[in-house]
Amino acid sequence: MTTFPAPVDEPSRPGLGLVGAGAFGGFCLPHLRPFFRIHLADPRPDLGEIAARHGVRAASLAEAAAQPFVLLAVPVAQIAATGAAIAPHLRPGTLVVDTCSLKLEPLRLLRAVLPASVELVGTHPLFGPNSGRHGIAGLRVTVCPGRGGRHRLVERFLERALGLTVIRSTAEAHDREMAQVQGLTHLVARLVDSLDLPRPSQTTPSFEQLMRAVEAVRDDSEALFRTITQENPFVAPLTERFFATAREMQARMSPGSSAGCLPGTAGEAVGDAA
Amino acid sequence: MTTFPAPVDEPSRPGLGLVGAGAFGGFCLPHLRPFFRIHLADPRPDLGEIAARHGVRAASLAEAAAQPFVLLAVPVAQIAATGAAIAPHLRPGTLVVDTCSLKLEPLRLLRAVLPASVELVGTHPLFGPNSGRHGIAGLRVTVCPGRGGRHRLVERFLERALGLTVIRSTAEAHDREMAQVQGLTHLVARLVDSLDLPRPSQTTPSFEQLMRAVEAVRDDSEALFRTITQENPFVAPLTERFFATAREMQARMSPGSSAGCLPGTAGEAVGDAA
Repeated sequence: MTTFPAPVDEPSRPGLGLVGAGAFGGFCLPHLRPFFRIHLADPRPDLGEIAARHGVRAASLAEAAAQPFVLLAVPVAQIAATGAAIAPHLRPGTLVVDTCSLKLEPLRLLRAVLPASVELVGTHPLFGPNSGRHGIAGLRVTVCPGRGGRHRLVERFLERALGLTVIRSTAEAHDREMAQVQGLTHLVARLVDSLDLPRPSQTTPSFEQLMRAVEAVRDDSEALFRTITQENPFVAPLTERFFATAREMQARMSPGSSAGCLPGTAGEAVGDAA
Repeated sequence: MTTFPAPVDEPSRPGLGLVGAGAFGGFCLPHLRPFFRIHLADPRPDLGEIAARHGVRAASLAEAAAQPFVLLAVPVAQIAATGAAIAPHLRPGTLVVDTCSLKLEPLRLLRAVLPASVELVGTHPLFGPNSGRHGIAGLRVTVCPGRGGRHRLVERFLERALGLTVIRSTAEAHDREMAQVQGLTHLVARLVDSLDLPRPSQTTPSFEQLMRAVEAVRDDSEALFRTITQENPFVAPLTERFFATAREMQARMSPGSSAGCLPGTAGEAVGDAA
């Protein structure tokens, strides 16, 4: 059994190629650095600065791909091109791990472009730079077996070294749940955010909770919003239903409506504060 | 200066008539009982049981109204009728306090029906049986001067005896903020709740926060939802805008749309996890 012990001296750490120095790649670095010699690759012009700031090596894509572990922190839209670009440089037995917010299509694309001699594990960290800003222990991560049996190694690392709660899932089950979890949260958050309302002083606990959810996704990228709401094949029925329900609510709430506000909510008539 | 010291023996406590033994009235009882001799009035047939369960007196409306303090825990829709019903039994100098989720219209109605010899203070506890189930210290309450100067007495009691954070407001400023705070929270919560989705296992922190907000208002009565969304004169423009924004979002997200998803959200292209 391969174990992930306490952080070791830099030269003895295994090499990890991190492809993608964007918001999530940068967020990962301090959590991974104690366990790996990291080679950070990204075409962005400020790669050197980012690598220096985190105390890791700026690397070419070829150098990153030549490490025994390769972690992809790129959006779903770039996963096929990234996979094709690293493919010629991968060594047999390399473990490639992706972090896309979707799993079905990215893992299918990676399986198609990566050589048969490398193993593949899909992960989706169910948190980000905002929700993980005070630490990631106890947060959730999905692991989807991709090719080969080393998802168990990845699970042990995520649980024991990073303290995450691992949920093993098929890619399809993951994407179905994400349609609801991320789809709904982002729909609501973007809707509320678009209203651009002033911050009131007389607030209820439930309003504060709603605003925390809105603020947590406010900084997510437009690319992520598109991935969540448009690239997940299971999200369309939910989006459809969300907006249809909004129209029904509006109709029920219109002054001329004789229907009750909402079905199944008949409550007590007395007791008036929220 | 009148002070509210530590709870005193029952016979020396001032009398308080609590009108309304519904969800909010019942929720108030354990918090008020250490400070008052409570006379609980409500036309409901199980009044005796509720009073016995809380160790307070079941009372007629006349008895409750004859106390030096009278607290109204009835919905906005019943405030005028309740005010008219207690009016003949009120003694000069009595302090009447309401707890309605709106302040402008309820205070106007109460000023119209209560004798000029009683004082009036409007309050809106910005919490309820759900958000206050683990205690109310630190939660917020709005106080609106109604008639006379004893709102300062009420504020001191709420702050020092109950540990609440008091926000003094005009009735209009309160109703304007509530249009947003309660209106928006309830619109979103009812919308999400109406989708009737299964509870997923792979959840993000922001989804969990959204669901806590939804669950916090789930148990609110239909009467409260109507008060919040339909009886507040300032909520209609927000509701209108909420549904209009939903329609715009849907149009932008439709497959044929060439527009970006949402304005002002261009984010980083790399960094793909929420």
